[in-house]
Amino acid sequence: VRIGGQAVVLIAGPCTVEGLAMLEETGRAARAAGAVMLRGGAFKPRSSPYSFQGLGSQGLAYLARVRAQAGLPVVTEVMAPEQVELVMRYADMLQIGARNMQNYSLLREVGRTRRPVLLKRGMSASIDEWLEAAEYLLAQGNTQVVLCERGIRTFETATRFTLDLSAIPVLRQRTHLPVIVDPSHASGQRHLVGPLALAAVAVGADGIIVETHPQPTSALCDGAQSLDLDQLAGLRDAMARVAGAVGRTMHDPVSAESLPALLGPQISEGGGCQ
Amino acid sequence: VRIGGQAVVLIAGPCTVEGLAMLEETGRAARAAGAVMLRGGAFKPRSSPYSFQGLGSQGLAYLARVRAQAGLPVVTEVMAPEQVELVMRYADMLQIGARNMQNYSLLREVGRTRRPVLLKRGMSASIDEWLEAAEYLLAQGNTQVVLCERGIRTFETATRFTLDLSAIPVLRQRTHLPVIVDPSHASGQRHLVGPLALAAVAVGADGIIVETHPQPTSALCDGAQSLDLDQLAGLRDAMARVAGAVGRTMHDPVSAESLPALLGPQISEGGGCQ
Amino acid sequence: VRIGGQAVVLIAGPCTVEGLAMLEETGRAARAAGAVMLRGGAFKPRSSPYSFQGLGSQGLAYLARVRAQAGLPVVTEVMAPEQVELVMRYADMLQIGARNMQNYSLLREVGRTRRPVLLKRGMSASIDEWLEAAEYLLAQGNTQVVLCERGIRTFETATRFTLDLSAIPVLRQRTHLPVIVDPSHASGQRHLVGPLALAAVAVGADGIIVETHPQPTSALCDGAQSLDLDQLAGLRDAMARVAGAVGRTMHDPVSAESLPALLGPQISEGGGCQ
Amino acid sequence: VRIGGQAVVLIAGPCTVEGLAMLEETGRAARAAGAVMLRGGAFKPRSSPYSFQGLGSQGLAYLARVRAQAGLPVVTEVMAPEQVELVMRYADMLQIGARNMQNYSLLREVGRTRRPVLLKRGMSASIDEWLEAAEYLLAQGNTQVVLCERGIRTFETATRFTLDLSAIPVLRQRTHLPVIVDPSHASGQRHLVGPLALAAVAVGADGIIVETHPQPTSALCDGAQSLDLDQLAGLRDAMARVAGAVGRTMHDPVSAESLPALLGPQISEGGGCQ
Repeated sequence: VRIGGQAVVLIAGPCTVEGLAMLEETGRAARAAGAVMLRGGAFKPRSSPYSFQGLGSQGLAYLARVRAQAGLPVVTEVMAPEQVELVMRYADMLQIGARNMQNYSLLREVGRTRRPVLLKRGMSASIDEWLEAAEYLLAQGNTQVVLCERGIRTFETATRFTLDLSAIPVLRQRTHLPVIVDPSHASGQRHLVGPLALAAVAVGADGIIVETHPQPTSALCDGAQSLDLDQLAGLRDAMARVAGAVGRTMHDPVSAESLPALLGPQISEGGGCQ
Repeated sequence: VRIGGQAVVLIAGPCTVEGLAMLEETGRAARAAGAVMLRGGAFKPRSSPYSFQGLGSQGLAYLARVRAQAGLPVVTEVMAPEQVELVMRYADMLQIGARNMQNYSLLREVGRTRRPVLLKRGMSASIDEWLEAAEYLLAQGNTQVVLCERGIRTFETATRFTLDLSAIPVLRQRTHLPVIVDPSHASGQRHLVGPLALAAVAVGADGIIVETHPQPTSALCDGAQSLDLDQLAGLRDAMARVAGAVGRTMHDPVSAESLPALLGPQISEGGGCQ
Repeated sequence: VRIGGQAVVLIAGPCTVEGLAMLEETGRAARAAGAVMLRGGAFKPRSSPYSFQGLGSQGLAYLARVRAQAGLPVVTEVMAPEQVELVMRYADMLQIGARNMQNYSLLREVGRTRRPVLLKRGMSASIDEWLEAAEYLLAQGNTQVVLCERGIRTFETATRFTLDLSAIPVLRQRTHLPVIVDPSHASGQRHLVGPLALAAVAVGADGIIVETHPQPTSALCDGAQSLDLDQLAGLRDAMARVAGAVGRTMHDPVSAESLPALLGPQISEGGGCQ
Repeated sequence: VRIGGQAVVLIAGPCTVEGLAMLEETGRAARAAGAVMLRGGAFKPRSSPYSFQGLGSQGLAYLARVRAQAGLPVVTEVMAPEQVELVMRYADMLQIGARNMQNYSLLREVGRTRRPVLLKRGMSASIDEWLEAAEYLLAQGNTQVVLCERGIRTFETATRFTLDLSAIPVLRQRTHLPVIVDPSHASGQRHLVGPLALAAVAVGADGIIVETHPQPTSALCDGAQSLDLDQLAGLRDAMARVAGAVGRTMHDPVSAESLPALLGPQISEGGGCQ
């Protein structure tokens, strides 16, 4: 999978890995809908310590299994330097979340790997601070950095955050790094995800990352902003039309055989998967 | 001209009416590019009392002349209740600027007319406050209200304002009023206007209002964010492609003959025009 | 009353003039508590056209009566250029509200008077824009301008606005104009008003304007942020202690006899008062 | 040192530990001025990887030496879970910086210690999110948490951040945790620090943490917002007057002998100190 070329990528998956069955169903549907990567949180940053914190290494194992089944490379969040080695065993791309955009020890540790990184914008980070955070990764020699706009904090309460689509053409002038957009976290509402995803393609984003869930209303986390699997298929078609209108195409899924082996599934850590 | 139907409108013109020649040139080019309305400020709200404040009634007369020549209905800002009668003699649509979104005596006065209104969002107005401001117009019986998103104030300084494109699908659920987008004032930079206009069409806006100028670098006001006349033509084509991708068309210009007579040109006020 | 000298002023009164009896009671108590001016809205800017809009000229007449009874000069909001002449008949000081900070025709009209002006900061106005708005008044020759910080719009929802007390020492370096603080509108909550008023005195403000009401829980508007009359008396004492700690004093009330005659009470307009 | 009682604390020191001599001079002056704790950064979170990142463990050793000389307990930032053990050897209080307020692995690790913690507010964190971050510490059993307001991000550019003093009385209703204020980082300008510190005492803060430097103009970091040593002494006196006006006192420095032994100075790590 190449992010940043002529083809626009669609990355989809649940907010949180809740179990193997729901992840398998989501993976199959995402693949069928034309998604090229699977997202899903095993370690979840939650504002409150009393909220569900994710399945941890077991969630990673589930991701790795569905990765192999569906032929979808995996992107998942790593929250602390000491988790980097573990997450690398299971994931093709390491996500650094908005709250950790200026967690410099994490940036340095991830920068020392050669694994692609998805660097989300902090919710009150200026575009320049975001690029400086990327510089922490690049300075360690990791050049496979993808930026992800996911909304900034403003006074407006009709949406969870205000998606800053102006950032995409601004970044085009300031960096060669690819940029994707997360309309799910930005808006917090399912009915806004589609229109914002199309706007992101029109404004020049290199891809979209959306939350999807087999039964959004019963999701453990972020159900209100998750597309159901039918909506995901419809979104991909609409994205293709807008991509065509701006001279781009949609990235096709890769074959399961072409995915490189990861270390994860061979080890017993996380258990549930072997 | 119908705003809010299946067809997307392009409204273009200079920030400020600087003189007759430049306005005629702009009007011809805008018409040729497929714009369906002419914008241009005669009365200009400026942060400083020492900045150029516009040509006033003379500017209105110039607008009315180019309106007739080019067959472009005119939208221009009215800044105070006592200007309403004057501006109505020259303009097809009255614009209420962002700074005046909560100028209630102005809203009431414009509400008492039956002239279409373009109500810009205040730079820190929530979507709900914006709709309440529209209610001041509607409550007086003026039902031809078009909303215009033009960016909100945030911490980000890379753009003049942060264009809140999420507002468009949010408004779709809360009101039947049409919504257009002003990417020029929002971004403050020419190279951002095109991508944001396309994003606005993709997200579902009913039209775009952009600043254009024959020689942007010598404009009296907002030159940095004005498209030149070639860029305007290119923008219209790109908008048409994106409109098609989301199942819409572009609104065609109307014929000069179909424009209703206004009172303006008959009177001598504003002088320079007769 | 002198605002901007060594002595700190306390201005108090109801959000809205609801009737004569409540205003008389408030006036007496405010005077007894050491307030030196009476505030109260006759014309009210309300987000919704369906909210109570104030008593209008009758409210002005009530203010003028209590002004004479209690010996408290009156400050009240003027919302439109055409109201300026009327409000000047009743009020010692004209208030320009936050929503009208960039209503330039209003600024010019008020600037042409020689009546003191209270210019509130717009809810998203930068300090520089605020000073430029003041310049509209000064440029017309009205030099008696007092600035009023009343909170800016941010992402924080625990308070109605975020009171920007840093603005006071910033303004000290940029202008000679006096600055007062409105902790009632900024916070929106009664229990925050006292602490913020003391902080405003400590940071160097020239005065405080607070909302007070005989029965806050039954106020027509802003009851949740209004002090009751006992709390007002306590606040004045606390302010005096903090003023002393920073080398200032509290301004004493003036005598009723020293107030200049206004035109208002002589005319029948507003009715209820004669 | 007790934070949160009737007495207000003054914490002072350089932004960054630049060397032993400057730190000794600052420590002596801070002690003489009545500061009760020494602040200073050994590990510095910097937006750019190419900025000075602090002296690291050598800086910690310097802090421990001046701690013993001047009788000033030390508070310094810890940026990553793996630094916690090291910093605990040298510091009496662990600071979690604004950028790390939602670094949950760091919060958990610090929560597992029984060392007092200074938890700075994230620059776009709501008050509720800040309290939830504190809950990560409390849930691990560390109950000695002090909150520190340091300004939030808004559109206003006259100050680095907007100090949210309303947060102090809001927190008083929502938590028993003590709250101090950092006017240096909030304002970014020396001349604003004093007025804001007094406002913080007036509004009810339990203390102030300020940056001070022997020669602010030659500081490696944040010189523009650092007080010189004379200004620090003047600030303490002014704070005492305001504290008296609101019924509080200033906390006296403790004796050097009363400080508990820390492990730091005994080890050779960091070198320069033995």
